Amino acid sequence: MAFSFTRTIRFSDTDAAGVVYFANVLSICHEVYEESLTSFGIDLKSFFSYPEVAYPIVHASVDFKRPMYCGDRIVISLHPQIIDDASFEITYAIESGSEKIALAKALTRHVCINATARKKQPLTSTMIDWINSVAAN
Amino acid sequence: MAFSFTRTIRFSDTDAAGVVYFANVLSICHEVYEESLTSFGIDLKSFFSYPEVAYPIVHASVDFKRPMYCGDRIVISLHPQIIDDASFEITYAIESGSEKIALAKALTRHVCINATARKKQPLTSTMIDWINSVAAN
Amino acid sequence: MAFSFTRTIRFSDTDAAGVVYFANVLSICHEVYEESLTSFGIDLKSFFSYPEVAYPIVHASVDFKRPMYCGDRIVISLHPQIIDDASFEITYAIESGSEKIALAKALTRHVCINATARKKQPLTSTMIDWINSVAAN
Amino acid sequence: MAFSFTRTIRFSDTDAAGVVYFANVLSICHEVYEESLTSFGIDLKSFFSYPEVAYPIVHASVDFKRPMYCGDRIVISLHPQIIDDASFEITYAIESGSEKIALAKALTRHVCINATARKKQPLTSTMIDWINSVAAN
Repeated sequence: MAFSFTRTIRFSDTDAAGVVYFANVLSICHEVYEESLTSFGIDLKSFFSYPEVAYPIVHASVDFKRPMYCGDRIVISLHPQIIDDASFEITYAIESGSEKIALAKALTRHVCINATARKKQPLTSTMIDWINSVAAN
Repeated sequence: MAFSFTRTIRFSDTDAAGVVYFANVLSICHEVYEESLTSFGIDLKSFFSYPEVAYPIVHASVDFKRPMYCGDRIVISLHPQIIDDASFEITYAIESGSEKIALAKALTRHVCINATARKKQPLTSTMIDWINSVAAN
Repeated sequence: MAFSFTRTIRFSDTDAAGVVYFANVLSICHEVYEESLTSFGIDLKSFFSYPEVAYPIVHASVDFKRPMYCGDRIVISLHPQIIDDASFEITYAIESGSEKIALAKALTRHVCINATARKKQPLTSTMIDWINSVAAN
Repeated sequence: MAFSFTRTIRFSDTDAAGVVYFANVLSICHEVYEESLTSFGIDLKSFFSYPEVAYPIVHASVDFKRPMYCGDRIVISLHPQIIDDASFEITYAIESGSEKIALAKALTRHVCINATARKKQPLTSTMIDWINSVAAN
């Protein structure tokens, strides 16, 4: 159903209001996406660094329920889902590590492109396998 | 109708795919919010650094249309709007500085709170004045 | 002698040159400082968020030996040392997780201050204990 | 003698201690480097994004004298200098925009490499011209 990852809120994640800077919550979600790809056996360097086939984010959103502070342990669960032959969506649920209180939820929508031509193309079988593998967990 | 701001894409905004890292587009939008508050005469230090009344973001979203590269000059327009007595929304349109091609659009929704009690409260008259002032431009 | 921490290079750490953005190496070092304080039992939220006694960095430096790529596993070792009654220094050694090849080294110098008055003051006994505890490891 | 640039401290530059996060001061310095290259006529996209010849930073240091807060206007002056046929150094002085009080100083050392082979090579004539041009200002 999902891939889960535990992470500590870092001082560099915070801002002068004393809590996590809003845009950094999306970065934290992307880390979990990276972690899930790695645990599936995908090499991040060739996946993200000027690859032939890329999955750029075309839409992202995030809802904040409770503030997160430096040192907080949070658990992020990731749920990927195929949207159509060229795109997929990931939803993220962020909870406090201790009491499992909902802190935030987020979403990223990705489109598969040929990175040289920057043209849409069908999802690769590797990505479909990753999505199905996480969904089956 | 709007407040506009021109900015250059920085090397630190980019990632190993060669374009702006997705979450940084929301940071760039927040800079324009800060710039608009400043131009209205609001002191950012007391507004953002552990204030009595705060306007945390409860929702944010962003749509990406075209990639942005290091050195690109972009123009961001900000449009704030009152939602109810305790909240407002800002929409952002990002265009290339030269050909006015749409690059991205974004949205942030803010709720007014008493920062000590972390309880919702009505928007202050200063914020209502800022919103009306930008809308009247 | 040291506290060690393993970390994966994130996509958000990188820049359009395809490697870790130089300043982010210092952020990664700071994470290890935070991790070491936590493992000693110090609560990061009260330590870093508008505390009474603070340890701001007055000097930092970093030397880069080899590039780091998204997905790389790195090991950071931290060595704190007392400089005088009001200051301490931390050196960091960054190696590849697999072949133990030196990637970078860094240094941060911290001064103990009363955060309200922003005046220098002697290191607290807690900080001296943390430094001695890591040194004895 | 130098190239100068004025910048506002952003909310995203700050941390939960209420001031600029230490590593971000080096990012701000790098922005001024980018701005100086642009004003000399260098195209940042081709300069920084997987170029043939690159100038990676091999050493950086920063000294902090006074804290910087969200909204502060700062002036950064950049002074480049040739070190040997394959490397140059930039020093940065950061002052408050109003009272010209020293806030920080920093240094970055760059080595010219063939980016494909990652081998040292002599500085290009363009870079020598940029360094001399800034020095002559």
